[in-house]
Amino acid sequence: MFFHQQKLQYNATPEAPDAVYARKLQEVIGGQYGEITVAMQYSFQAWNAHIPGKYRDLLFGTAAEEFGHIEMLATMVAQLLEKAPLGITEEAVQGDPAVAAVIGGTDLQHAIVAGAGARPVDSMGNPWSGSYVTASGNLLADMSSNVNAEMQGRLQVARLYHMTDDKGIRDMLSFLLARDTMHQNQWMAAVKELQADGLEQMPVPSNFPQAKEATEFSYDYYNFSDGATAAQGSWASGPTPDGNGEFGYKDQPMAGVPMPPPTHPDARFYGTTEVPNRVEKAAGALQDKLNRE
Amino acid sequence: MFFHQQKLQYNATPEAPDAVYARKLQEVIGGQYGEITVAMQYSFQAWNAHIPGKYRDLLFGTAAEEFGHIEMLATMVAQLLEKAPLGITEEAVQGDPAVAAVIGGTDLQHAIVAGAGARPVDSMGNPWSGSYVTASGNLLADMSSNVNAEMQGRLQVARLYHMTDDKGIRDMLSFLLARDTMHQNQWMAAVKELQADGLEQMPVPSNFPQAKEATEFSYDYYNFSDGATAAQGSWASGPTPDGNGEFGYKDQPMAGVPMPPPTHPDARFYGTTEVPNRVEKAAGALQDKLNRE
Amino acid sequence: MFFHQQKLQYNATPEAPDAVYARKLQEVIGGQYGEITVAMQYSFQAWNAHIPGKYRDLLFGTAAEEFGHIEMLATMVAQLLEKAPLGITEEAVQGDPAVAAVIGGTDLQHAIVAGAGARPVDSMGNPWSGSYVTASGNLLADMSSNVNAEMQGRLQVARLYHMTDDKGIRDMLSFLLARDTMHQNQWMAAVKELQADGLEQMPVPSNFPQAKEATEFSYDYYNFSDGATAAQGSWASGPTPDGNGEFGYKDQPMAGVPMPPPTHPDARFYGTTEVPNRVEKAAGALQDKLNRE
Amino acid sequence: MFFHQQKLQYNATPEAPDAVYARKLQEVIGGQYGEITVAMQYSFQAWNAHIPGKYRDLLFGTAAEEFGHIEMLATMVAQLLEKAPLGITEEAVQGDPAVAAVIGGTDLQHAIVAGAGARPVDSMGNPWSGSYVTASGNLLADMSSNVNAEMQGRLQVARLYHMTDDKGIRDMLSFLLARDTMHQNQWMAAVKELQADGLEQMPVPSNFPQAKEATEFSYDYYNFSDGATAAQGSWASGPTPDGNGEFGYKDQPMAGVPMPPPTHPDARFYGTTEVPNRVEKAAGALQDKLNRE
Amino acid sequence: MFFHQQKLQYNATPEAPDAVYARKLQEVIGGQYGEITVAMQYSFQAWNAHIPGKYRDLLFGTAAEEFGHIEMLATMVAQLLEKAPLGITEEAVQGDPAVAAVIGGTDLQHAIVAGAGARPVDSMGNPWSGSYVTASGNLLADMSSNVNAEMQGRLQVARLYHMTDDKGIRDMLSFLLARDTMHQNQWMAAVKELQADGLEQMPVPSNFPQAKEATEFSYDYYNFSDGATAAQGSWASGPTPDGNGEFGYKDQPMAGVPMPPPTHPDARFYGTTEVPNRVEKAAGALQDKLNRE
Amino acid sequence: MFFHQQKLQYNATPEAPDAVYARKLQEVIGGQYGEITVAMQYSFQAWNAHIPGKYRDLLFGTAAEEFGHIEMLATMVAQLLEKAPLGITEEAVQGDPAVAAVIGGTDLQHAIVAGAGARPVDSMGNPWSGSYVTASGNLLADMSSNVNAEMQGRLQVARLYHMTDDKGIRDMLSFLLARDTMHQNQWMAAVKELQADGLEQMPVPSNFPQAKEATEFSYDYYNFSDGATAAQGSWASGPTPDGNGEFGYKDQPMAGVPMPPPTHPDARFYGTTEVPNRVEKAAGALQDKLNRE
Repeated sequence: MFFHQQKLQYNATPEAPDAVYARKLQEVIGGQYGEITVAMQYSFQAWNAHIPGKYRDLLFGTAAEEFGHIEMLATMVAQLLEKAPLGITEEAVQGDPAVAAVIGGTDLQHAIVAGAGARPVDSMGNPWSGSYVTASGNLLADMSSNVNAEMQGRLQVARLYHMTDDKGIRDMLSFLLARDTMHQNQWMAAVKELQADGLEQMPVPSNFPQAKEATEFSYDYYNFSDGATAAQGSWASGPTPDGNGEFGYKDQPMAGVPMPPPTHPDARFYGTTEVPNRVEKAAGALQDKLNRE
Repeated sequence: MFFHQQKLQYNATPEAPDAVYARKLQEVIGGQYGEITVAMQYSFQAWNAHIPGKYRDLLFGTAAEEFGHIEMLATMVAQLLEKAPLGITEEAVQGDPAVAAVIGGTDLQHAIVAGAGARPVDSMGNPWSGSYVTASGNLLADMSSNVNAEMQGRLQVARLYHMTDDKGIRDMLSFLLARDTMHQNQWMAAVKELQADGLEQMPVPSNFPQAKEATEFSYDYYNFSDGATAAQGSWASGPTPDGNGEFGYKDQPMAGVPMPPPTHPDARFYGTTEVPNRVEKAAGALQDKLNRE
Repeated sequence: MFFHQQKLQYNATPEAPDAVYARKLQEVIGGQYGEITVAMQYSFQAWNAHIPGKYRDLLFGTAAEEFGHIEMLATMVAQLLEKAPLGITEEAVQGDPAVAAVIGGTDLQHAIVAGAGARPVDSMGNPWSGSYVTASGNLLADMSSNVNAEMQGRLQVARLYHMTDDKGIRDMLSFLLARDTMHQNQWMAAVKELQADGLEQMPVPSNFPQAKEATEFSYDYYNFSDGATAAQGSWASGPTPDGNGEFGYKDQPMAGVPMPPPTHPDARFYGTTEVPNRVEKAAGALQDKLNRE
Repeated sequence: MFFHQQKLQYNATPEAPDAVYARKLQEVIGGQYGEITVAMQYSFQAWNAHIPGKYRDLLFGTAAEEFGHIEMLATMVAQLLEKAPLGITEEAVQGDPAVAAVIGGTDLQHAIVAGAGARPVDSMGNPWSGSYVTASGNLLADMSSNVNAEMQGRLQVARLYHMTDDKGIRDMLSFLLARDTMHQNQWMAAVKELQADGLEQMPVPSNFPQAKEATEFSYDYYNFSDGATAAQGSWASGPTPDGNGEFGYKDQPMAGVPMPPPTHPDARFYGTTEVPNRVEKAAGALQDKLNRE
Repeated sequence: MFFHQQKLQYNATPEAPDAVYARKLQEVIGGQYGEITVAMQYSFQAWNAHIPGKYRDLLFGTAAEEFGHIEMLATMVAQLLEKAPLGITEEAVQGDPAVAAVIGGTDLQHAIVAGAGARPVDSMGNPWSGSYVTASGNLLADMSSNVNAEMQGRLQVARLYHMTDDKGIRDMLSFLLARDTMHQNQWMAAVKELQADGLEQMPVPSNFPQAKEATEFSYDYYNFSDGATAAQGSWASGPTPDGNGEFGYKDQPMAGVPMPPPTHPDARFYGTTEVPNRVEKAAGALQDKLNRE
Repeated sequence: MFFHQQKLQYNATPEAPDAVYARKLQEVIGGQYGEITVAMQYSFQAWNAHIPGKYRDLLFGTAAEEFGHIEMLATMVAQLLEKAPLGITEEAVQGDPAVAAVIGGTDLQHAIVAGAGARPVDSMGNPWSGSYVTASGNLLADMSSNVNAEMQGRLQVARLYHMTDDKGIRDMLSFLLARDTMHQNQWMAAVKELQADGLEQMPVPSNFPQAKEATEFSYDYYNFSDGATAAQGSWASGPTPDGNGEFGYKDQPMAGVPMPPPTHPDARFYGTTEVPNRVEKAAGALQDKLNRE
């Protein structure tokens, strides 16, 4: 169950309206790595978790916080739009290219659809999609995904920070940056602890039977591009991070195997095959068959 | 530039047709973590890279390999569909519930749209989407994303392995599992090397000025759920993985701040406000304004 | 802020596994009118609300309940999948058409992607989309949308009720049906109260200046199909629900006006116009212009 | 069958080109509540209708009119784009910030893809989606959805009205506003008539057996947020709109029930469970099983 | 304007219910090349046309016919679903694997969402998308697109024909096949006539100034794969179909040019560059700048 | 297998940064007819091909070239963004409407998400979709689709050419235009050769049995709009392009057939039927049945 409290975690009030910036903030509301994504991702990971205890509590506890971040951002967006010219015709708008410029960069649906409110979309207007969510039931894989999400998220907030001078916006972003710092660290700690607890190892999934893997290909880099410097990396020699092998480097791909011959599916799919398809020839066995079916 | 060679990296021929399994393989062709995703993701990361050398070579070299994996899988799918009943009406199909069952589980577009061929979609028929790709220009963030992608990908292939007895399919999957093992290790090694080279650190982005972050919130876990065991994890005390702080644990969220008052945007958005909207009252100043605009 | 409690509102445990039914339940998790939609819709309506007080409290209070409904359904789905054959190869699966049939009807991503867990998608596997949300800032419009959502939602749950005999599932659905009954009633009551409070009237938006509307077309039905019985309805005569007019019925559409002539945009768009485009004729003024640009 | 007449229902010619406004109009062509949505929605409702007569005639008759509205808007968009600078390079464009501003706000695909023509997309460029359509076969639910669609649609047109001074555009919008007035009224009248005819009642679906609903939860508001004023509404006490109960108000949610224990699906999904996954431990029964499969 | 007549163009009544086939028919209703696509595509091409007369009349006249085809198919789908078991629990369904098999293959939203009616989706449940439409304003390009659409469409209908024995369905399909025959021929004739009328030529757009094209690359095939037989085709030598050149064949790609050096965008994007990012080094000029911004 | 070479086919370096133009170029990277589409389309056509030899070699050889075009464009986009103001706050940006105007027209995700790099999206930010790909197994249909794709693609590049004065961009576009010229010609030649080789004819599919088609409708134009000039085209009389018939022209549609009666599906779908649904009446047989199920 979720309960709501009519408070925000932290300040979310701008100094001044800025409709273009409101659009930019949509990226961290409804984008691939926005707050809706992490709130939903941590929730589904918790609901799909197979063990009770610290990992699931961590997922539930962080998920609920992230729903509150959506709220902070949506509240901020509404205020940024409150007094901003949103394409409403006025002398000032019509005659002033600077104002017109602003309008050119706004999310038009902020005005036409939401009446100066936030929306579950990204900065280019793409609606948030359930396909952004990762929740596989394997906690090492999923918490690695969470590390990734928090990295991308903090990166985007840092970029957004430099796109405004508004002290109120920057104050809110300074809080979100801090929480992203915590969450990057937290998921990284959990990734380590999962391995220390012996619950999962690299490579994920770690207890897939080794005998079923073509292990002769498991630790060699095959170079499919003509740059030579990939041979200089730690992925080209030395022990592998999973502790199970030694990296090798091949400057050429494997020789490969012949492609299997092209398929010839049922004639009733009408694909193009070697059999001539001329009307005058079609009175043969194939055409007889098609006529019957 | 890309060049194509009419060979496959490894065997991709099934023992027998299996249209339902063909549909399942679509997940690792066109799903969120399928081969199209990694091929495109590593390509865009390379094109957006800001430094030449080993990291970019690694991206280019692996991207090209992944395009070849799409090819292996598409070739396999076509063969699995070649002799399979794909809903084409025949006595056998009509009368045999087992055959009917098989048909119930196929990708109908394999038959109707592709004529017994592969498609750029996932196992539920959703078309592959460019929104699956992550390429931010920050290599630590992006290569962490690659670790995640290879973990999810190998997990899916491992599950698929157990869903068939076909020796040909399993042979191909044993190869893909091995390459996913390599790629998990490779990106993890690169993640470490980026930090060892001093190019980037945690938290990403690491040179965002600390003075601009609300650091009092950077290392504490605030518990937004009522489970108590999250306090037992390494994310609740001790040094943080980024080396910059000490984890703390708060069993209650922050007190929060009052929500800012609701916004009152321009009346021409016709949102609902405290101003009564009755026709008889609307003859006042607001209505005058609306009448004029 | 949102807080999470590790309890469910109501029982959500099935008697037996049923992977096909798990897929069906996805419709009311991640479908157009599933619980994610109403949870997000009521949240965005609250965040975009322009007046404090009873309407906004109602939105916040109901939104949080709906997040809990997602949780109940996700928990149910995971249990339905727990012991179900999900395409994992076993003798029983291979040889038994009934089991094969079941597998044909499952959500393949439940197995391959989520490892027997719920996903933010509908029953056909389409990911939930932010485009399902309605939040315009006009409460009469939005709460009418909520009435609609709860009607469609309860209808879907009622259909799902008849698709299983499982007492555990039916118990949970009986609860969701009851809450949908409440929410239909609640939003309908709010729709009436908004009008009684004079905050908004029909037609929405009600204080758009009448002088700007072509009122001669505001209350007549024009019949664009050849059925004659639409003339028998209450929409063909008598007072209109908005209280502002009298319905009329026209058995023919308006005469219409001539279409404006086709447009002739800039030649550099290379659209097809009356100007012949032959290479030998292109040496004229148009081609000169194109050559210059 | 549908027939086309080369006339428009009403004037649709602007005074002057305006490429930014053309983009805004796309919202009511191809947006969630645009004319494509209502044309398709009423059509599918008619095709899925289970009774002949006045309701189905009403659906058919209105659907055909809405297809004509798409046409009016598309015609208007083409004219707005006809003489507008659409990013084509010219001295005027390069040097004049006002012209540049205009270009910043245009739909780039109007120029690059459509060559100065309309497209089946919304104002942010999202393509129209079949997922916007509601057609359930239950006419009370569906016509309530139609009321909602016409409310949102008229609201958007009213906002668009204030975003231009162009007399030609405003003339066309004054017609669309009038038709939306009619359609809001018409569907509301139909909603009442369906109930008066005894064909359906609230709550939808009304003849779902009451004994199968957990009626103790059917008429009480449970407050999941900490605002107290929802208790003041007509949804907190008094008779319910469906005529079947009395509203109640609970300032606390239900106590809830314990969450069922986490699931433990088949080991071949490689989810994370309490069983340690260390390589050295995996030589036990679980690993034996995995090796065999 | 569009008018509707309550007749179908042709018979659309099945002999017997078949819910799996109903799902298959969705492909030609709401798929990439279904009837919604062609109806909308021809409409938008007509609305975006720049010349009155025979071509535009042809577009309008065919578009309206295609709307009627959607109607025929939707009517057929509803009848196929009318008496079919749609997952409703009954003894017969539970105990009979054949019935279960059928249910496994149905569109679950046909039952849960539409209540046994058609939907604007394809056979895998993907909603129809406005991105399927092609309407560029260049009639030679667009009518070539129409040829393509009718080819793919007829191919799909032919495949569907072989997937049923139902005489009623086959009767309807025989009509749709005939109309696709006509429309393939009609658009092909129009493609020729456009060129004969001198309105447009190959390559589209034909009056793009030749001096602006790198004509040394305009007529040579560069072989980027290692198969040698492409040299045998008519595209490897002889006159080109546009009449402007001679085909050439190069068995190797062009030598290519060096890639430009990687970009170094503004430091505030926090991309990874050669500049070490270590905390201890960040006290330099870059960090000073970031601190200031 | 694919191999990558760190060269570009042709120059791809702009004279100057231009973030708005970078966004425009996204159309031909990730749009419906962008380079990702043709690269993937030709690849899937090759993988789904049923005959070895010249046609498949042509597909493979061209597909690989198109992957290189994505690379050229992505490289260009990164350079156009390198020095451009991307919404980063600076005095110049804040105070200068021309700069602000530029920012209004940029792809905001270029800055926030990609850190000044290219993305797999179109010019309006829609992610590339697998639904753009056409690969049916019928080569005449598919290569006609390729003709269409190259026509639309060259048209878009020609329009883009006129939207910039930058000599570097124009140089690259002159190359892409030339390759599109080649590819239009090449696919058109292949379309002819397929017919000359007798592998397929019009109408596609050509060996579908004529006896199964309602041939009385195969060659007549039925006019569903009221324009009369479609009678003047070559599609209204004379021999048909498939060589099998004579065009006819009917200025009226077919008389049509009565619509089948509305369906009455199972009562448990709760659709609206003639049976009154009043609670007081529901105590009859229907309600008894619902109560039992």
